[in-house]
Amino acid sequence: MSEALIVGVGMGRFGKYPDTTLADIGWPAVKAAIADAGIDARRIQACYCGSSLGGMMAGQRVLGRIGMGGIPVTNIENACSSSSTALHQAVLAVRAGKYDAVLVIGVEKLTKFGGGVLPLEQEDWEVRMGMAMPALYAMRAARYMHEYGLTREQLARVAVKNRANGALNPVAQMQAPVTEEEVLASRPVADPFTLLQCCPTGDGAAALVVVSAALARQLGRAGVRVAASDLVSGRFVPGFRDMTIPEITLRGAREAYEEAGLGPEDVDLAEVHDAFTIAELIYYEAFGFCGRGEAGAFLDSGATRIDGRVAVNPSGGLLAKGHPIGATGAAQVVEAVQQLRGACGPRQVPGAKVALTHATGGGLTGYDHGACSIHILTR
Amino acid sequence: MSEALIVGVGMGRFGKYPDTTLADIGWPAVKAAIADAGIDARRIQACYCGSSLGGMMAGQRVLGRIGMGGIPVTNIENACSSSSTALHQAVLAVRAGKYDAVLVIGVEKLTKFGGGVLPLEQEDWEVRMGMAMPALYAMRAARYMHEYGLTREQLARVAVKNRANGALNPVAQMQAPVTEEEVLASRPVADPFTLLQCCPTGDGAAALVVVSAALARQLGRAGVRVAASDLVSGRFVPGFRDMTIPEITLRGAREAYEEAGLGPEDVDLAEVHDAFTIAELIYYEAFGFCGRGEAGAFLDSGATRIDGRVAVNPSGGLLAKGHPIGATGAAQVVEAVQQLRGACGPRQVPGAKVALTHATGGGLTGYDHGACSIHILTR
Repeated sequence: MSEALIVGVGMGRFGKYPDTTLADIGWPAVKAAIADAGIDARRIQACYCGSSLGGMMAGQRVLGRIGMGGIPVTNIENACSSSSTALHQAVLAVRAGKYDAVLVIGVEKLTKFGGGVLPLEQEDWEVRMGMAMPALYAMRAARYMHEYGLTREQLARVAVKNRANGALNPVAQMQAPVTEEEVLASRPVADPFTLLQCCPTGDGAAALVVVSAALARQLGRAGVRVAASDLVSGRFVPGFRDMTIPEITLRGAREAYEEAGLGPEDVDLAEVHDAFTIAELIYYEAFGFCGRGEAGAFLDSGATRIDGRVAVNPSGGLLAKGHPIGATGAAQVVEAVQQLRGACGPRQVPGAKVALTHATGGGLTGYDHGACSIHILTR
Repeated sequence: MSEALIVGVGMGRFGKYPDTTLADIGWPAVKAAIADAGIDARRIQACYCGSSLGGMMAGQRVLGRIGMGGIPVTNIENACSSSSTALHQAVLAVRAGKYDAVLVIGVEKLTKFGGGVLPLEQEDWEVRMGMAMPALYAMRAARYMHEYGLTREQLARVAVKNRANGALNPVAQMQAPVTEEEVLASRPVADPFTLLQCCPTGDGAAALVVVSAALARQLGRAGVRVAASDLVSGRFVPGFRDMTIPEITLRGAREAYEEAGLGPEDVDLAEVHDAFTIAELIYYEAFGFCGRGEAGAFLDSGATRIDGRVAVNPSGGLLAKGHPIGATGAAQVVEAVQQLRGACGPRQVPGAKVALTHATGGGLTGYDHGACSIHILTR
């Protein structure tokens, strides 16, 4: 089995680009990743493109703009995990020796839906009854507050931390820091969430070049090693379910740590799926960064700040960097790779050697509709 | 490298099921494929689900209905090649030794769009100017007729042959045979096509169980061998392009024959992408079944009938079996496997040993948006 290394990353600033086509949102990230890898574009043998709502042939449309047609392109939809699943498949193909240079794209244009609630599946009875994502996570937050005494102020401080990180990230959609008071005073969305506790919608793209160890040597690139690449989907749990435990992430984390031969104590930074403030806290526990019910105190201790024990969402996370759904997984990996290279300037996690990325999505009825993809990267 | 074998196939009748959910269209095919394979569903390790317009998490929604959540699910969008691309990825994973039992699903519900023209990408300028698929293929047909003297009657006879085959196929959407006169007298769609020269839209699902050679032995199944599994995407051709040459299929055919170590003379039956009558004729030539410009005469010779030299679309093809976009690639493979088993009753291709399947789609601007996936199966 060949080792898979990431040798090139690229992304543009996430934001709202209603007048730009999906292809034109996507190709600059691809060109940046290829230039970053120092690889001749003609050596790229295949492409896996993650997009959840991008429509037919998103990858071909992006590559068509820059004369990269011809190679096998596989478009992957796994909701918020779309481009991390694309990376998972790219890693599988490189490890198997099928290809030695693969391009991963994550691209999404949510402004094409004109703002407002995303077009979830009306065939899903929970969606039809109004269970949009903010409502689902609000229920999780309320339960967690009830069980563990988490306060509204602690919830708000997740947003404060991530917006502060985002203020240091030139590709973040939201670049203004916010105070705890501003978060709490922003307009209510689904109690206990105020607007600033929900990630923004937007457009964006990110791209990665994944190569075999042999090709990385040829290119003279050390690269970042993919120590674990995991994909799981939700499992139906009959009867009572504890909404404060993200079963899918817990299972994925266990598999990913095992594959990497590493544990939570080894992780220097983690880009986790903070679509809403409560999510980040729940994931501290799912990844074993702290114990059950301790997430609020763990946050308050400063352990997850850029200079803390495990920096969580140094990029700003979904709350600040933005969340163009299909682009998110790849964008998390862009941040992780740049952190492991020590190239993040003012938001650099000191001495980062092990990074974890986590994209999870979908998943309403009985949690069995979700997908979660976790990567552990090392230098 | 382990060999990949198909040991289970399942599909229901293609048709219009507006009152059935995507999940409920999908799961019966999955259960049928698993029963056909004689495998315990808990041994299935991963799922690749092809769907072009099925919305978020199509595979998870299907599997959720029958308690098969938990396994990694990757949803794949490649327009008409969606589920053949899913098979391609499943074959890659089994050959690589990543999994030894993988489920492939193709599922689509086109009736959710209320009939009429499919929602192609408005960002594609050719689509915006009215270049729907019937118009594109009509231009190809007109050019081919001009170049090679193909007649309207010959075009119509493709539909007559495939509807006759479909009349022998219990899962075909269109089961009434039609005459040449009826085809020519049906209402005009895009000259030279009349309605009966265009495949119907509809809903449907097909599923496959792909296993390693070792597991096939354990299950006591001979299985059908995947001798070639190819995926290509379109390549931009500047300047004049000959619309009668499907560059993407030509390239894919060359790669697939090379991988299988076989040639056109070895193929006993082919399920090719006859979305419109002209398409089947053009593909005769692309696959080397006959020479350039000879497709009309080749059809008239009877060579592509069920008892001919190479049976083309014994299932009825897209024209009769139907074309729920994401389900088509997998459904072609269902037919090929059943033919190689000698299980097709009145439409059985005598002594079939080598089958080819071909799903190609997308692809407007400069042909660089397309995807084409070809499989060669042997017993």
